Amino acid sequence: MLEHDLSAFSGARCVVTGGLGFIGSNLARALAEAGAVVVVVDALVPQHGGDHRNLQGCGAPVDVVLADIGDAQAVAPVVARAEYVFNVAGQVSHLASMEDPVRDLDLNARSNLAFLETMRKVNPDAVIVHTSTRQVYGRPRYLPVDEEHPTTPVDVNGISKLAAEQAHLIYARTHGLRACALRLTNVYGPRQRLRGDDSGFLPSFVRRALLDEPITLYGDGLQFRDCLHVDDVVVAITAAALCTHATGEVFNLGHPEYPSLREVAGIIIDAAGSGSLVTVDWPPERKRIDIGSYRGDASKAKQFLDWVPVVNLAEGMVDTLSYYRRHLSWYL
Amino acid sequence: MLEHDLSAFSGARCVVTGGLGFIGSNLARALAEAGAVVVVVDALVPQHGGDHRNLQGCGAPVDVVLADIGDAQAVAPVVARAEYVFNVAGQVSHLASMEDPVRDLDLNARSNLAFLETMRKVNPDAVIVHTSTRQVYGRPRYLPVDEEHPTTPVDVNGISKLAAEQAHLIYARTHGLRACALRLTNVYGPRQRLRGDDSGFLPSFVRRALLDEPITLYGDGLQFRDCLHVDDVVVAITAAALCTHATGEVFNLGHPEYPSLREVAGIIIDAAGSGSLVTVDWPPERKRIDIGSYRGDASKAKQFLDWVPVVNLAEGMVDTLSYYRRHLSWYL
Repeated sequence: MLEHDLSAFSGARCVVTGGLGFIGSNLARALAEAGAVVVVVDALVPQHGGDHRNLQGCGAPVDVVLADIGDAQAVAPVVARAEYVFNVAGQVSHLASMEDPVRDLDLNARSNLAFLETMRKVNPDAVIVHTSTRQVYGRPRYLPVDEEHPTTPVDVNGISKLAAEQAHLIYARTHGLRACALRLTNVYGPRQRLRGDDSGFLPSFVRRALLDEPITLYGDGLQFRDCLHVDDVVVAITAAALCTHATGEVFNLGHPEYPSLREVAGIIIDAAGSGSLVTVDWPPERKRIDIGSYRGDASKAKQFLDWVPVVNLAEGMVDTLSYYRRHLSWYL
Repeated sequence: MLEHDLSAFSGARCVVTGGLGFIGSNLARALAEAGAVVVVVDALVPQHGGDHRNLQGCGAPVDVVLADIGDAQAVAPVVARAEYVFNVAGQVSHLASMEDPVRDLDLNARSNLAFLETMRKVNPDAVIVHTSTRQVYGRPRYLPVDEEHPTTPVDVNGISKLAAEQAHLIYARTHGLRACALRLTNVYGPRQRLRGDDSGFLPSFVRRALLDEPITLYGDGLQFRDCLHVDDVVVAITAAALCTHATGEVFNLGHPEYPSLREVAGIIIDAAGSGSLVTVDWPPERKRIDIGSYRGDASKAKQFLDWVPVVNLAEGMVDTLSYYRRHLSWYL
């Protein structure tokens, strides 16, 4: 589906961490198909969505190194000569972060700090783009949320992701690394982990529609979210890598549409031609870490990166469901 | 010097983490002398300022358990029956955090997360007061800095301390722990680590004055800071523990005086009757993580805790220098 011109990366040495996972694999494929020399670093942490099949059918070769990004010995030779490092690896489950908070901190914050130390020591001139999350804002105090909004995470995953993001920006300011960070809103698209209900509401809704199961809305389902197709995210990540003014900056990636979760479910059911809706009371463990309605202000990304999302939710979901129908067994 | 009434803690079971260090030992002594049953947990991490002699001469017994707060097995039996837990342990060096960032994250963020997990499992009803730092704000965008100011740390120590603070507040909101956090400005007083120039400018200035060495000012020395005597901090910490509305809240501890560093040095030299001043250019590794002028707005602490600092810098420094003159060999 991606039709963006990535020819600037032709021949460029690129590393994608988390490159067997959802966003990382879509990015690695796009770069490789644009002629980049791509190496993926992925720890294949269970439940994180990493899968070798996410690179299957890619139109160009992608090397894969199985390693934790915090493992300096394994990672240093991989990143030593990279021109572009896309640091996408991470654990995304909010509930898991509350069940095993120390593990979440290790996976998201500690590994990233160690990774930045490796970059500083072996390749301080590489461009680094880090994917953070709108989760760092916590419950919005105003809408749309811009980058100046206070960062008050509501769960341990938000703490860890914020620490990782801040580390990238501090390494840019204090060590001169050419690092920037993108705060992603909810992302959907091909190659996302659909199993369980713990990678965000979008993959959960998609799986239930595909299986013709009821999509569960908590409360009235009227809280709204902006949703990004992964292709738009890939465009933003690559634009950030090419933007010479991005160093040390953080950018929201959001979408101008902000449907209610009820509307999102309806769009997915329409695109799938299956599934239904059911409303239940909020489970307390989810209510405690819910942030209510959210939409991001992405005007800084437009200004710096000339980025605007081009995929609307209805057409993005048609593409998404078509992908999963072809490869359903990989994701269920 | 402390004359505050802490009789509310008479007979109360209190745990002070980091209780062999600067703030922790002053707090543990005050509580014990007020009749509390005090157990100190301290890992005696080198260079953190922990020293058994900090409890020497205390007017009441204090039990000491040598353990890292992240060591659940060692800590659980200590905290299991505590009514008040004062979680003061931490590494404070900004430069060390940039030299070994992963270690700083482990000591400040990871250990605190593990500690909160222990509290949640073995004693969810205890009151927990955590000492955070004004360093979480980074470079002030406006002055005085209130609790709504954005948190944008400038070094890894700030990241780790912010993560620890946020974890306390999240555990209050999501797990119902009775935890709150205090963001301390620069603190001075008896029992602070004076060795090295890495625990903040105040102990460095004090040591140099005591040794009749020149106090080094970077740049013009006109940046200002509010400075708190540790007795005022002890009063705030204990007030927060007794405040039933403090749960889930964060409070600045600041001082209405905000002398320039040049003035602070002059006050210390006057109190010591020794020392001198020298001005040098900023060392780059310090300039990169300097925050410029700072003063905190402590009106929320006044409103919730009825707390205002009562020790001014000149009289506080007389007390401080008098202490170190009596025990100089312990701290040099």
